[in-house]
Amino acid sequence: MDIKQICVNAGDAAVKMAALDSETKNNALARIALALIENKDRITAANNDDLKRSEEEQLASPLLKRLKFDEKKINDAVEGIKSLIGLEEPVGKTLLSTMLDDGLELYKVTCPIGVIGIIFESRPDALVQISTLCLKSGNSVLLKGGREARETNRVLADIIEEASVAAGLPKGWISLLESRDDVNEMLKMDEYIDLLIPRGSNQFVRYIMDNSRIPVMGHADGICHVYVDSCADVDMAVRVTVDSKTQYVAVCNAAETLLVNEAVAGRFLPALKKEFDKKNVEIFGDEGTRGIIAAKPASEADWATEYLDYTISVKLVADVDEAIKHINTYGSGHTDSIVTSDRANALKFMNLVDSGNVFWNASTRFSDGFKYGFGAEVGISTSKLHARGPVGLDGLTSYKYKLIGDGHTVEDYAANKKSFKHIKLDKTI
Amino acid sequence: MDIKQICVNAGDAAVKMAALDSETKNNALARIALALIENKDRITAANNDDLKRSEEEQLASPLLKRLKFDEKKINDAVEGIKSLIGLEEPVGKTLLSTMLDDGLELYKVTCPIGVIGIIFESRPDALVQISTLCLKSGNSVLLKGGREARETNRVLADIIEEASVAAGLPKGWISLLESRDDVNEMLKMDEYIDLLIPRGSNQFVRYIMDNSRIPVMGHADGICHVYVDSCADVDMAVRVTVDSKTQYVAVCNAAETLLVNEAVAGRFLPALKKEFDKKNVEIFGDEGTRGIIAAKPASEADWATEYLDYTISVKLVADVDEAIKHINTYGSGHTDSIVTSDRANALKFMNLVDSGNVFWNASTRFSDGFKYGFGAEVGISTSKLHARGPVGLDGLTSYKYKLIGDGHTVEDYAANKKSFKHIKLDKTI
Repeated sequence: MDIKQICVNAGDAAVKMAALDSETKNNALARIALALIENKDRITAANNDDLKRSEEEQLASPLLKRLKFDEKKINDAVEGIKSLIGLEEPVGKTLLSTMLDDGLELYKVTCPIGVIGIIFESRPDALVQISTLCLKSGNSVLLKGGREARETNRVLADIIEEASVAAGLPKGWISLLESRDDVNEMLKMDEYIDLLIPRGSNQFVRYIMDNSRIPVMGHADGICHVYVDSCADVDMAVRVTVDSKTQYVAVCNAAETLLVNEAVAGRFLPALKKEFDKKNVEIFGDEGTRGIIAAKPASEADWATEYLDYTISVKLVADVDEAIKHINTYGSGHTDSIVTSDRANALKFMNLVDSGNVFWNASTRFSDGFKYGFGAEVGISTSKLHARGPVGLDGLTSYKYKLIGDGHTVEDYAANKKSFKHIKLDKTI
Repeated sequence: MDIKQICVNAGDAAVKMAALDSETKNNALARIALALIENKDRITAANNDDLKRSEEEQLASPLLKRLKFDEKKINDAVEGIKSLIGLEEPVGKTLLSTMLDDGLELYKVTCPIGVIGIIFESRPDALVQISTLCLKSGNSVLLKGGREARETNRVLADIIEEASVAAGLPKGWISLLESRDDVNEMLKMDEYIDLLIPRGSNQFVRYIMDNSRIPVMGHADGICHVYVDSCADVDMAVRVTVDSKTQYVAVCNAAETLLVNEAVAGRFLPALKKEFDKKNVEIFGDEGTRGIIAAKPASEADWATEYLDYTISVKLVADVDEAIKHINTYGSGHTDSIVTSDRANALKFMNLVDSGNVFWNASTRFSDGFKYGFGAEVGISTSKLHARGPVGLDGLTSYKYKLIGDGHTVEDYAANKKSFKHIKLDKTI
């Protein structure tokens, strides 16, 4: 089937997906979970083929780890689906209701977006998460996974399609694309696809944005900051900084730059250095930092670098305002945290740092759909339009205005025969 | 000042705008309203220059009408500002609060988008509406109005800037661009501008989308439908159809295509024709329509045409499903209305028609920010991402996640020392 036909089918299916009730969608999710368990051997066999081929192709070890989809990861995926079933129905929620005039009622109601194209890395669990989030939110989905996971993805997409269609979902709601050519074709389908979510490198997300008219939701990069304020508890500041930097260095919400208030630097930095040394964290510091602890000199470029490694840049600042200014200049709008016991500074930081996730006395590593209680996420958005931060079910819905009248015409209002009342209601449709 | 410097200033101002309290913003709005009244003569004098020049350039009469900004229109603008002052504060609203674990609370809070670029037609009232909506929602704004309104726009932007800065707003939050070169420069400023809202022809909106990396919110066109169902009240159907088509033909929410259920066509179409004839509405009909009333033959192209005139295309359909299918194929996702006394058909229509505004027994002409009670609108979005339908204050805001902890680290959860509780709170921050 060519990409255009796949898109047309996905669009036809999307109309039917939008009309499904909660029970049908949750039944389909339950059948998918069951089918994953029943097909464990088939899935792990396909995954072993992928692992073997990738090892031969000398795929780096962290990537092999992400590619692996063994019994434990299948069980995790099943648990994820179960928690998704328990989440509130995202479609048909009334966000606003207003009586415009007697007998004329306006409702703002959530609905699916339609057809979503998602391009993701070689992590089979991502396929399960993404497709089930799209199912629950009533969207059709075109999936393109990493080449390395080819066999696993085929088996998973087959299982999910078969189980969901058996549960009453329309054929065509889920499709797997396989080649780069397919992706390039997909980018041209702005008539059929409502949203693209690319996951991957900055360069890759940029490429998608520059080569498609379809709206793109993606994060460009994750240059996250911890700012240690003058009146921070030093122990807490060390704990939060170490966790933000080292708990998992290869992810977008790991801290890359540490900003330290000059007033606390003399006490804080040596204590931090001790912990960083245990984990072999390399430090690039500005002049002030290097006056207190041993560090390599940081250049301007360091403030704009996403290391994704046991490396951090450190800068002294005079106050919270300088920290905010630095973050809004060099940050990527992802996640930034202040450690302080001063409430006013904390509120200022959270209000004025222009990022999707702004934290007070907590590790940057908390910005994540699962940790936020969204069930899972399709990605983390650093855009300020539509969805921002971890994108779960809410970010996969749109809304429409439903107006119910009794033959109302605008001319009556234009001619001043009637006038609007605009009374807030508390009704659902 | 070059465009880049204007953008940098707007960005600096945006940080301050985001921190303004309600009172400061409402005071600024009140001073703007007062300044408009005090400067009536200056405004109308400038507008007379624009009108005179445009008449000499033989601008079409409907466009001259829109360009005119006389005392009555100034008073309307002032009334609009007063109602905006009365609207709920859009920034700092808590949309969600969750206790992730003991002492770890997550808040989803609305915030301004940042810097918004708006390109609009030669209607001076649009400048006042757009800039005051941006003010109330805490955004900086770059305005580019139509060439014909040059003098009026200069005076209005001056007055608004002066009055608002005197009330404590940061200089640079509002800037007026004047040339096409300025616009082309602006399109490159994706580093500084968060959102572009182009108002104008399809072609123009497309041009902006194809020539900028900045996210664009705009409507492509307005091909709106009325569908008269089998069990529609014929009188009501005539009333709603006539209003949808003729109340104001030059606007995007006027109906362009009428779909009529075959079962009611014999009674409805002759009654409609009588009313349409009084207003000289030209009808393009399919074969079935032409079997009942006199009409020119409609071609496939008519279903996809936005006439913006006293012209309508008419097609018979077998049932509500065919109507939905036709609308989702040829419509533009703007506004579509069903006239029926059958609740099930109405709900089906409103759920499955993939448009921002779906109406039951009401004229398509109701889709409008003022009529919806949003105070005013910056435009009507046919996109399904971010804002859909009339875009008022809500569409000019984003949100951020604020997480407040007590030194919480992710490692404690990864190591199973702690686990998430995810308890819904009803708290604001």
